[in-house]
Amino acid sequence: MPILVVDVMPKAELLDPQGKAVHGALSRLGHAAVSGVRVGKRFEITIDEVTPEVIDDVTTVAGEILSNSVIEDVVSVREADAR
Amino acid sequence: MPILVVDVMPKAELLDPQGKAVHGALSRLGHAAVSGVRVGKRFEITIDEVTPEVIDDVTTVAGEILSNSVIEDVVSVREADAR
Repeated sequence: MPILVVDVMPKAELLDPQGKAVHGALSRLGHAAVSGVRVGKRFEITIDEVTPEVIDDVTTVAGEILSNSVIEDVVSVREADAR
Repeated sequence: MPILVVDVMPKAELLDPQGKAVHGALSRLGHAAVSGVRVGKRFEITIDEVTPEVIDDVTTVAGEILSNSVIEDVVSVREADAR
């Protein structure tokens, strides 16, 4: 069945403590090439079929339910590559 | 600066209680087209420059530090689209 992928990330202008912690850990472990980390969420939503209505519905859900619009942005809603 | 995106998802054969909870909520709210939800993580790793060594390094980090290989799979490590 088709899968829609919804990516949600903390807003760029906000601190991301979880990302900061991961970045700190990577720095201490010697991964000097990494200069920043942000951690967000990835939802894989299995749907019955891909229609414009379903994509609209999932896009609405992404903005209203899957993300907290005060602190997060929906980066993308897209169909997953076949796998 | 370039960004590498690392996607981590719970392994397909394992239960994903968080995804189940989201799916249940969506069903109760009447989103009948959704037949399953899985919730994973998305890391945006800012790096100084894209070289094969850095990509190798981040791929190793993704498998050993960013994901718990007992319960999660690294779905992809890729360069983010310019934005």
